[in-house]
Amino acid sequence: MSVSTPTQQVSNWLAAFGTALDRGDHAAAAAMFDDEGYWRDLVSFTWNIKTMEGRDAIRAMLDACAASTKPGAWAIEGEASEAGGVAEAWFGFETALARGRGQIRLKGDKCWTLLTTMTELKGFEEAKGATRPKGVEHGASQDRKSWLERKTQEEADLGYKTQPYCVIVGGGQGGIALGARLKRLGVPTIILEKNPRAGDSWRNRYRSLCLHDPVWYDHMPYLPFPEHWPVFAPKDKIGDWLEMYTKVMELNYWTLSEVTSASFDEAKQEWTVNVNRNGETVVLQPKQLVLATGMSAVPNVAKIVGADTFKGDIHHSSKHPGGDKYRGKKCVVIGSNNSAHDICADLWEHGADVTMLQRSSTHIARSDTLMELALGGLYSEEAVKSGVSTNTADMIFASIPYKIMHTFQIPVYEEMAKRDADFYARLKKAGFMLDFGEDGSGLFMKYLRRGSGYYIDVGASELVADGRIKLKSGVEIEKITPNSVVMKDGTELPADLIVYATGYGSMNGWAARLISQQVADKVGKCWGLGSNTTKDPGPWEGEERNMWKPTQQPALWFHGGNLHQSRHYSQFLSLQLKARCEGLATPVYGLQPVHHLS
Amino acid sequence: MSVSTPTQQVSNWLAAFGTALDRGDHAAAAAMFDDEGYWRDLVSFTWNIKTMEGRDAIRAMLDACAASTKPGAWAIEGEASEAGGVAEAWFGFETALARGRGQIRLKGDKCWTLLTTMTELKGFEEAKGATRPKGVEHGASQDRKSWLERKTQEEADLGYKTQPYCVIVGGGQGGIALGARLKRLGVPTIILEKNPRAGDSWRNRYRSLCLHDPVWYDHMPYLPFPEHWPVFAPKDKIGDWLEMYTKVMELNYWTLSEVTSASFDEAKQEWTVNVNRNGETVVLQPKQLVLATGMSAVPNVAKIVGADTFKGDIHHSSKHPGGDKYRGKKCVVIGSNNSAHDICADLWEHGADVTMLQRSSTHIARSDTLMELALGGLYSEEAVKSGVSTNTADMIFASIPYKIMHTFQIPVYEEMAKRDADFYARLKKAGFMLDFGEDGSGLFMKYLRRGSGYYIDVGASELVADGRIKLKSGVEIEKITPNSVVMKDGTELPADLIVYATGYGSMNGWAARLISQQVADKVGKCWGLGSNTTKDPGPWEGEERNMWKPTQQPALWFHGGNLHQSRHYSQFLSLQLKARCEGLATPVYGLQPVHHLS
Repeated sequence: MSVSTPTQQVSNWLAAFGTALDRGDHAAAAAMFDDEGYWRDLVSFTWNIKTMEGRDAIRAMLDACAASTKPGAWAIEGEASEAGGVAEAWFGFETALARGRGQIRLKGDKCWTLLTTMTELKGFEEAKGATRPKGVEHGASQDRKSWLERKTQEEADLGYKTQPYCVIVGGGQGGIALGARLKRLGVPTIILEKNPRAGDSWRNRYRSLCLHDPVWYDHMPYLPFPEHWPVFAPKDKIGDWLEMYTKVMELNYWTLSEVTSASFDEAKQEWTVNVNRNGETVVLQPKQLVLATGMSAVPNVAKIVGADTFKGDIHHSSKHPGGDKYRGKKCVVIGSNNSAHDICADLWEHGADVTMLQRSSTHIARSDTLMELALGGLYSEEAVKSGVSTNTADMIFASIPYKIMHTFQIPVYEEMAKRDADFYARLKKAGFMLDFGEDGSGLFMKYLRRGSGYYIDVGASELVADGRIKLKSGVEIEKITPNSVVMKDGTELPADLIVYATGYGSMNGWAARLISQQVADKVGKCWGLGSNTTKDPGPWEGEERNMWKPTQQPALWFHGGNLHQSRHYSQFLSLQLKARCEGLATPVYGLQPVHHLS
Repeated sequence: MSVSTPTQQVSNWLAAFGTALDRGDHAAAAAMFDDEGYWRDLVSFTWNIKTMEGRDAIRAMLDACAASTKPGAWAIEGEASEAGGVAEAWFGFETALARGRGQIRLKGDKCWTLLTTMTELKGFEEAKGATRPKGVEHGASQDRKSWLERKTQEEADLGYKTQPYCVIVGGGQGGIALGARLKRLGVPTIILEKNPRAGDSWRNRYRSLCLHDPVWYDHMPYLPFPEHWPVFAPKDKIGDWLEMYTKVMELNYWTLSEVTSASFDEAKQEWTVNVNRNGETVVLQPKQLVLATGMSAVPNVAKIVGADTFKGDIHHSSKHPGGDKYRGKKCVVIGSNNSAHDICADLWEHGADVTMLQRSSTHIARSDTLMELALGGLYSEEAVKSGVSTNTADMIFASIPYKIMHTFQIPVYEEMAKRDADFYARLKKAGFMLDFGEDGSGLFMKYLRRGSGYYIDVGASELVADGRIKLKSGVEIEKITPNSVVMKDGTELPADLIVYATGYGSMNGWAARLISQQVADKVGKCWGLGSNTTKDPGPWEGEERNMWKPTQQPALWFHGGNLHQSRHYSQFLSLQLKARCEGLATPVYGLQPVHHLS
């Protein structure tokens, strides 16, 4: 019996896997996976974002995709590592059309998890480093156009004399990150933003808002934040950065531009997008339409009896202007997740009398603890020092199949519950209903499953615990009167302000609003994994519904998520769009069926 | 006889040197240098920018500075390298007040060149990486100020309710780079820029201008250009980058602001700076005044008989609007350096009839050849790949004493003359007077000595060689008539436009204009090494006159140069200013005497 190093182990596996694929022996290739083996593919084999779970699914994908994909050149990168009987390594590979990069985990000689991702399309690589443009044309020419003249011409023509291949609706971090990648790939694109300036979707939020995720998690593509950027950037600072970013990345970014309607012409395979551009009607006819309107863009407003009789201010959290005008006022905030906590704290800081109405249990994670236990290994100064760049961290995160991700998460939150036991005890004592997710898997799984149900505590929980923010918990609202909220237990809460911090609907609500209910229903619910937990009904989907990948509506795409997802998945969406723009064959494997309308 | 590695050799030298300094034996320390040994110090020992040439100068500096500097903790960084009998290495060291980094070259057991540079002041380190600000204040507070509120308040107060410690006149790359470093160091600073937007000093130049230096040489501090940035960035693109940079670095950058006068109050040790801020008069009272008005900011205009009778357009190159309006016109450009060539080519591209008047010989270097032979080793994609970052390249460049720099340069230009022999032959045949500098040391030495006398060829030379740009060379101008230029050989050149591409005067001309002729004379000529070559009269100075270091006028500083120098020397100027701002002792060793007024 020979002893092999983890590197030899992985190299041997890749060589044998490549050989099996070369000879079209998909049964043999699938047999090289563990009983509970996973293969997650980001675009490179499936032209989809897809996790194959188990040997049969892997075999079926290979039968459908391998012949056209023509994979090869599997080669380990650097050395494999080994921990707990699992060998891990990075590798490169190629397909007929693309170059890719992957990550593998072996248990013995079987593959437990395989990640394959598309890096670049052959012949359409982004110019950078040694292939960057020269910038100047040496020599003399009597019809030279300067950079500024070419840029000004493109800005004047695009959308008028020439049509963009792609229109992105929504110019937040998602639209901007995707737009930047498409610019680098040479895909003519217009980004539509309703606000006057890039970054306004951040600037318009309440004044004390800072990012809840740390800087290492938040970098935009191509232009990382400098080393002195704060850990949790204030909203206006992020707004300024995004505005700068659109300019130096030379995006065709239309401000004060709202889509009034859009429709798809099946015969021409083309969209008609009607845009109100600062009062001017412009009709765009792109081949691809991306909704990057944000996961949190269609407000859920609960229907409460008597709400129309209320004489004070009443609005959804997304419209909340901040606490300035509510000093000394009685404020009721309905909800107990991030927005509810942030708004309650902001109102309290402005000297308002604040009551939070908690309708269902909430997961609370203290920011410092969350950073250290949940994110620190991948996204932190220590991670950077140990060689884990943001790109590497993204790939490691992407390599964990969603099916088993909760098993990695549960121990983190068990540790969190232990470490912050006193904190949680005080919250409970104040009447706050706590949970750690239905399976104890905590914050990130809640985010991936439902995009809600938690608060990253940056201070409001102490106000709740000690009663500076009053809490009404576990009682339903009976009705709203002209100047109060009445609870089913008879309590009457006098109110000058009511805020619905009641969350957001599925992103396909935007398709209903801009295109049609029919198209919204055709694509179905966005986000969520089908985990069969609250707000994420089964069946199991294996990937986020409709995000960053083909939907049931041809040429309609959804892009969004936090800064991490906007950065990472914009790579894969941009490659899908570029391939189509260049007329490459992009046979989609396993297009997701629709199980839920919203 | 024991054989030691280069690393041991350097480590031993540093240890012995440290020991000699510790016991105050300056004679022994100086004796560790070669007969022709050099020690270049950037601020760490001398609070000056100073090269000590030879043992006596080194000994004298140590006698004056060592006791107060208290150097120590000399430690090699990584491994030394060896080539041609010279061992080279990086090292760290400390002084009483600062941390430093250096570079050493040993010949045998003697030091040939030593570079010591100040990296940071102890207790005043820039916050970055693990020490970056948190950005958010966790917890709740009823008098919280948001980032935007603090920033808005600072912008409103600075220059009105509170006074900046430092005022920088001129918001080009020099003022911006220095302003960014001072911001990071917490030195309250206002940058004054006469144009409406940051970057306009680039935007306002002729349309086809691109940087003549490549991207790797041009990075700003803290925020490097992204990987796809062009090799030679077009002027408007650089303008946009600088504008973005001032915003994301949060500089107090006053646009449309011109200094009308400034004076120094010796008693209060404070400046009074009168500013016209977009029509409003503002009086600033900083402790330090930096002129970053550009090396190329006070135009030299030759006095030519009859110029006042000329009926066409006549202006200095700095006022040249570009060729748009000169199609079909007869244009005479006086001069044969960079601006003259660029303007001639631009006029030719716009269909003008162009004549260049060459008054004295010019050094021409083809851009591609220059990049490969002169810059490639330090500033190129290949350099980056071989581990030479821009910072490392800056330090290597800084480590070569000016006294011997030409000996490194001469072989480069010998190779250039050989490689481009055909090109030079064609230029000569067209009558162009060529040189490679008086000692054959080429372009960069001309730049360092006089800031002029060359053209980096990006295309105009071919137009000169083949006569598309007409050339009149080696003949003096007799006079200007209402519609022509008449040469001393009797030739009359009809002209609708005359451009004086006749260069710029010394930067102390700005002190004369803004402060007084007396102060301008007190500080004397700026720039140049005292090489005793054309436009750089002796005696030998050893460093650039008056640049980035104390001058004969207390609290008056000159900052400028190309993007490389703006980046690199802003570090040392910012540390000098920060130390004074904090009241640290900054005894200046070897303040430069004035030998020339302009």
